[in-house]
Amino acid sequence: MSNLDAVLRHIDGGLETSLFRLFELIRFASVGTDPAYARDCAAAAHWLRDELKAMGFDAALRPTTGQPAVVARYAPKGLPSHAPHVLFYGHYDVQPPDPLDLWESPPFEPRIRANADGRKSIFARGASDDKGQLMTFLEASRAWLSVHGRLPMRLTVLIEGDEEGDNSHLDRFLADNREEFRADAAFVCDTGMWDDRTPSIVTRLRGCIAEEITITGANKDLHSGYFGGAARNPIHVLAGILADLHDRNGRVTIPGFYDGVDPVPAATRRQWKQLRFPERRFLKDVGLSIPAGEKGYTVYEQIWCRPTAEINGIWGGYTGEGRKTVLPSTASAKLTFRLVGRQNPAKIRKGLRKFVKDRLPKDCRAAFDSSGGDNVAVTVPESSPWVALASRALRDEWGRSPVLQADGGSIPVVATFQNVLGLQTLLVGFAREGDAFHSPNEKYDVESYHRGQRSWARIIAELERHKEVSCPS
Amino acid sequence: MSNLDAVLRHIDGGLETSLFRLFELIRFASVGTDPAYARDCAAAAHWLRDELKAMGFDAALRPTTGQPAVVARYAPKGLPSHAPHVLFYGHYDVQPPDPLDLWESPPFEPRIRANADGRKSIFARGASDDKGQLMTFLEASRAWLSVHGRLPMRLTVLIEGDEEGDNSHLDRFLADNREEFRADAAFVCDTGMWDDRTPSIVTRLRGCIAEEITITGANKDLHSGYFGGAARNPIHVLAGILADLHDRNGRVTIPGFYDGVDPVPAATRRQWKQLRFPERRFLKDVGLSIPAGEKGYTVYEQIWCRPTAEINGIWGGYTGEGRKTVLPSTASAKLTFRLVGRQNPAKIRKGLRKFVKDRLPKDCRAAFDSSGGDNVAVTVPESSPWVALASRALRDEWGRSPVLQADGGSIPVVATFQNVLGLQTLLVGFAREGDAFHSPNEKYDVESYHRGQRSWARIIAELERHKEVSCPS
Repeated sequence: MSNLDAVLRHIDGGLETSLFRLFELIRFASVGTDPAYARDCAAAAHWLRDELKAMGFDAALRPTTGQPAVVARYAPKGLPSHAPHVLFYGHYDVQPPDPLDLWESPPFEPRIRANADGRKSIFARGASDDKGQLMTFLEASRAWLSVHGRLPMRLTVLIEGDEEGDNSHLDRFLADNREEFRADAAFVCDTGMWDDRTPSIVTRLRGCIAEEITITGANKDLHSGYFGGAARNPIHVLAGILADLHDRNGRVTIPGFYDGVDPVPAATRRQWKQLRFPERRFLKDVGLSIPAGEKGYTVYEQIWCRPTAEINGIWGGYTGEGRKTVLPSTASAKLTFRLVGRQNPAKIRKGLRKFVKDRLPKDCRAAFDSSGGDNVAVTVPESSPWVALASRALRDEWGRSPVLQADGGSIPVVATFQNVLGLQTLLVGFAREGDAFHSPNEKYDVESYHRGQRSWARIIAELERHKEVSCPS
Repeated sequence: MSNLDAVLRHIDGGLETSLFRLFELIRFASVGTDPAYARDCAAAAHWLRDELKAMGFDAALRPTTGQPAVVARYAPKGLPSHAPHVLFYGHYDVQPPDPLDLWESPPFEPRIRANADGRKSIFARGASDDKGQLMTFLEASRAWLSVHGRLPMRLTVLIEGDEEGDNSHLDRFLADNREEFRADAAFVCDTGMWDDRTPSIVTRLRGCIAEEITITGANKDLHSGYFGGAARNPIHVLAGILADLHDRNGRVTIPGFYDGVDPVPAATRRQWKQLRFPERRFLKDVGLSIPAGEKGYTVYEQIWCRPTAEINGIWGGYTGEGRKTVLPSTASAKLTFRLVGRQNPAKIRKGLRKFVKDRLPKDCRAAFDSSGGDNVAVTVPESSPWVALASRALRDEWGRSPVLQADGGSIPVVATFQNVLGLQTLLVGFAREGDAFHSPNEKYDVESYHRGQRSWARIIAELERHKEVSCPS
C-alpha cells in the first residue's frame, strides 16, 4: 500500500469522527461582522487553536485589529531543504444568518439531511463557507499525520475571522508580520466544484469594495401632507442616484469605472467557451431567466470578468406595519463593487462619491462610510507549477481534469498574499452550486467533505513526490 | 356678564385641570396602525367615553372593523327646533413614535417646557395631532355645560382610532350607520393656525392613497460575488421604478395621473398670493432651501393644490451593521399619493400598478398592498354660512380675521362626511407650524390649548345667537 493509499483509507474510516469535529466548529455562531457575536468568534478561534495543538502544531491565537487570527506552524526536523513550505488559509467567520425565518433548521445547529438532489448534506451557516471547506484540509493533514507521523512539507496555517467583513484587519496583520508568513505558495479552500463530478481550480477572482451612502434632506422627519411636494424626499434622491448607476445596457456609468478592465485573452475565452457554462440553468435555479448584466457579454463573462455595482441593502423612512405618512429625513444604501483586472479601488471609491455628489440637490447632504477594506482582483497564471500539481491530484481523485475557471466572488486575502507576501495562491474547493453560502439553508455535501479531504491528501502526496516545486514569485 | 363671558372666565380659571385631563389622554400610547398597541387604543377610547358620560352625554364605545369608535350624543329637551345639530369629530389614535432616540422626553409622558420660541408647550406624541386639538372642543363644551347647564345645540361627538391608519374602517362604520350621524354640519379640530397670531379655516384638503410595493427577483438571497452581474437585483429594479415616478420638472409620470386636477380659480389664487406665504422660511425651518415639487408652482401651490407621489419608506437586503455581500431576493417601498380636485383614487392605484409592471423585467414579480383606505380631496365653498360664523368667532378671539387656506394634509373622514353623509365640514384648528406632528418631539402650545377652548366657546356662542344656520347640503 502506498503512502497515499493508507491515508485515503484512514480518511474513509474516520469520516464520522471528522464530521463530529466539523459540527463542533459550526456550532460557534461566529458572525465576524456583528459585535454581538464577538464571544462566539473568540470561541471558534480557541477551538481551532486547540485542535491544531492536538495535531502537533505550534499554534497560537494572534490579536489583530479585528477578530483574533489562529496561526499554527508545522516544521518537522529532517525534511530536505527543498521540501516546499505551504501557507494554508481559511476563515472561521461566517455570514450573518438572517433572514432567520427562512431557515428550515437553526443556522448554528448542524443537521445532516438529504439535499434536493438526494445527496446527504450538512445544513448550517458556515457548513460550506468556510468551515466545512477549511476542515477538508485540516482533516487531510490530520490523517496524514496519524498514518505517517509527519507531513512531507513545512506548513503554516492561518485561519482568520474577518473574511466576510473588514479585510483590512488581516491585511494590517500580514503587513506587520510578513516575515512570519514566508512560504512557497498559499493554499486556499474557499471555492467550488465546476459541477457535481468535475473539480475546479480558480485562476481569477474579482476584487471588492464596499460603500455605505446616507442621504440627508430635511433636519427631521416631516409630515408628507404638510410638506409633501415642496420638501425633498431623500429616498427619492437616493433612488434616482442608484437608478443612474447603470445605463440601459447594464454598464456602470461612474466616469472612469472601466479603467483597468482589460479584455480577456482570446485563448482563455476559447477555453471558457468550451466549458459550456449552463447559462439558462444557472439563472433558472434561482428563479431567474434574463441575464441582468452588461449587454454583449455571456452570463459567465458577466460574473467572471466584468465588474459590477451592486446594492446590497437599502433603508429609509417607515418600514413597520401599516401606513405612516412620513417624509423622512434620511435614506441609506449599502453598495459593493466587484472589480476585475487592474481596477483601482481608491479611484472607484472616489468616482462613486463624486457621482453621488454631482447628483445631489444643493440642500441635501451625502455621508459615506467605506465599512470595510478594499481588495483588488487576482489573476493566477494557468502555467503555474502549483496549478499543474493540483490538477494531477484532482484528476486522480475525481477521474476528470479540473476546470481552470474564474470566480465572480472575492477572497480578499488572496490579493494580499499576492501584493504583500508575493505569494501565488492555489484555489481549490469542493463547494457545490446549491450550497447557498450567504443565503438561508447553507449546506455542504457530506461527499464534498469526504472527497475534499481525499483530494487534499492527494495534493500532499504530490508535494511529497515532486519535491522540487519552485516558488514562482 | 354675557353668556359667553362667563364661559370664557370659566375656561381661564380651569386651564390647569383641563391640562390634567389632556395629560391623562396623552398617556395612552394609542398607535392605531400597530397591533402591538391595540390595548392602549381601547384604553384611550374608554377614557373618552367615561369623560363624555361624566359631561352628561349618552356615550358608548362602538365596534368597527378597526379600532373602537367613541360615539356620544347630546340632545337637550326644550331646544327650539331650528337649533343646529353639529357633529364634532376627532381622533384618539396617534402616529408611531419612532425614531424613539430622537425624542427629548418619552413620547407618551407629556412634559410642559418652553418651546424654541419661549412659549410653554406640551411635548408628547399626540399632544397636537389630535388629542390636544380634540380636547379644545370637549373642554369648551364642558365649560359651557358647567356655566349654563346645557349647550345651545344638538351635538354628536365621534372620536375614532384609525385616522392615521386605514380610514376604510370608519368609512364602513359611517356607511353602515349613516342615519345616526345626520347633522347640519361637521366640526373638526385637526388643522393649524396660519401663524402664531392669525387663526385659520381650511377650505381645501388633499386626498391620500397608500400603496406598498414589493419586487421579487431571485427565489432566495444570492451571493453578490457568485451571481452579481448576471442576476437581477430587485433593489436596483425598485430604485429605477421610483426614480421614474417623476420627470425632470418634478411632474409625476404615471399616465393619467393629473386627470381631475383642475386649475385653481383666479380669485382663490389672488387671495392666496396676498397671504405672502413665507416660502423661504417654511423650507429653512426644516433645513431645506429648494422647492422640490413641480416646476412653475410656488411652495404653497405645491402643497395646497398639486398632487404628489411620495416614498414614505424603503427596505431591502442587509441593513444591519457591517457589510453583507448579498444580492437580495426582494425589495419593498411604501408610497403615498396626495390627491387634489377630482383625482380618482382607484384610477391612480390602477395606473401605478401598471406603471410598475410596465417597468418590471420579465423574470421579476411585483406584489401590491394598498394597506389602508383611499380618500379623495375635499373642497368647502368659502361662501358657506358655517365658514362665516366661525370667521366672526375667531376674529373676536384673536383680533384678526382668519385666513381661508388650503392644507396639504389629508383628513380622510372629511371626504366621507361629504360623500357619505352629505355634510359640509368646518375645519378650525390651533396647531402651530413647529408642532412636529408625525415627527419626534411633537408639541402643542399651552396657548393653543387655552385659546382653542376659548375659540370654540365663541363658536358655540355664535351658534346660540344665529339660530337659523341652514344646512347647506
